[in-house]
Amino acid sequence: MTAVLAAAVAQEGGKGQVVAVDPAPLDYGAPFTIGDAQAHLSSGPLGAHITWVQSSPIDYLSSSSQFDTAVLAHCLWYFSSPSLLLSTLRALRARCTNLCIGEWSLSASLKEGQAHVFAALTQAALECRKPSSESNVRTVLSPSAIKTLAQEAGWSLESERSITPELRLLDGRWEVGDVLDPAFEEEVKENVQDERERGVIFALRDATQAAVDRVEGMKGVGCMEVWVAVFV
Amino acid sequence: MTAVLAAAVAQEGGKGQVVAVDPAPLDYGAPFTIGDAQAHLSSGPLGAHITWVQSSPIDYLSSSSQFDTAVLAHCLWYFSSPSLLLSTLRALRARCTNLCIGEWSLSASLKEGQAHVFAALTQAALECRKPSSESNVRTVLSPSAIKTLAQEAGWSLESERSITPELRLLDGRWEVGDVLDPAFEEEVKENVQDERERGVIFALRDATQAAVDRVEGMKGVGCMEVWVAVFV
Repeated sequence: MTAVLAAAVAQEGGKGQVVAVDPAPLDYGAPFTIGDAQAHLSSGPLGAHITWVQSSPIDYLSSSSQFDTAVLAHCLWYFSSPSLLLSTLRALRARCTNLCIGEWSLSASLKEGQAHVFAALTQAALECRKPSSESNVRTVLSPSAIKTLAQEAGWSLESERSITPELRLLDGRWEVGDVLDPAFEEEVKENVQDERERGVIFALRDATQAAVDRVEGMKGVGCMEVWVAVFV
Repeated sequence: MTAVLAAAVAQEGGKGQVVAVDPAPLDYGAPFTIGDAQAHLSSGPLGAHITWVQSSPIDYLSSSSQFDTAVLAHCLWYFSSPSLLLSTLRALRARCTNLCIGEWSLSASLKEGQAHVFAALTQAALECRKPSSESNVRTVLSPSAIKTLAQEAGWSLESERSITPELRLLDGRWEVGDVLDPAFEEEVKENVQDERERGVIFALRDATQAAVDRVEGMKGVGCMEVWVAVFV
């Protein structure tokens, strides 16, 4: 549900403050919206420390103060292009001391997560052919590609590791469901004219289906590993 | 090494005859060429039964006699487009009683075969953007896509199954090596201008690398399953 969440923490007299930036409209997301999520967090024990900002991170950062740490949590694939991410990483470099990133890794060590990898790549292969995308996978980036962009923006990798999500996390099932839905085939036909280019997207979709079959259907589908990294 | 091999067997007084059709030049392939392979088979016990024809199957079939069985063995991905394969399947339908197909399945049940699936899809994602392709993956087609084309051409599926190749089969390692070679990156930059479209191909390549890392390097890379099917 998180579109772009750049959280930044400034230590002020021992009391941390978080500025949470997301350009998405508050009614984005289902079954819970961004607005629901913000209200839920604001009413919790940390609520008084969080300020919500509806803005693109790069606009917000152009006039913000300095922060200790920026957090980009599962939001990089929503960026409209790799170059917009690069500009954002540069803007963060000018305002923040540390950078923490969490994103899907495009790697699944367990067979339950494999369909999620194929589904993300299938969606990305279609979305990159649209003039503008509203999907969850607008710009697919591997950990290796993200590290290259971060280094270009002046960040140095301090540490990184992988986390295998529990099977009850539903993101994999959602992305796989989107790709296997008959509406996806229609979208491909609408946006991609060349039969060889269509064929590659359909082959990716069929590889997704094969990975679902290997775990005996959608109930067996989990998530790929999450990559987390700290830059300074 | 096989580019397009449509073998057809006609029973003539109890003595089978095979006509083996391949459009590739005889010096195609490495370290052994198509010519080497043909000479090896011709000098063996079945040599006297085989006639080699250097031609596209569709040209050969336009004036051939009738055959009992057509065999398409690991050659469909060399076709220049799905529609050329459809025309060839239709031409085979007019001349042959049975059709046997063997092709890579785009599915790997063992982790050793996963990099091969990603590598094939990565190559296909680049090749479909070239005006004409000389790669091993010119038109990627899943078993499901092949069955759809065969049915459109008038063939009925009689049986199908999957075979897991032994680890010593090197095709997976070859395709993965091609994709991870620095020359591949140059080819992408030469043939694909849009940064989002490039990004998808690089994400596929990085998913290939991640699958290689999971089996501790190239020595652990095997092949995906082979799909074999009989149509009547």
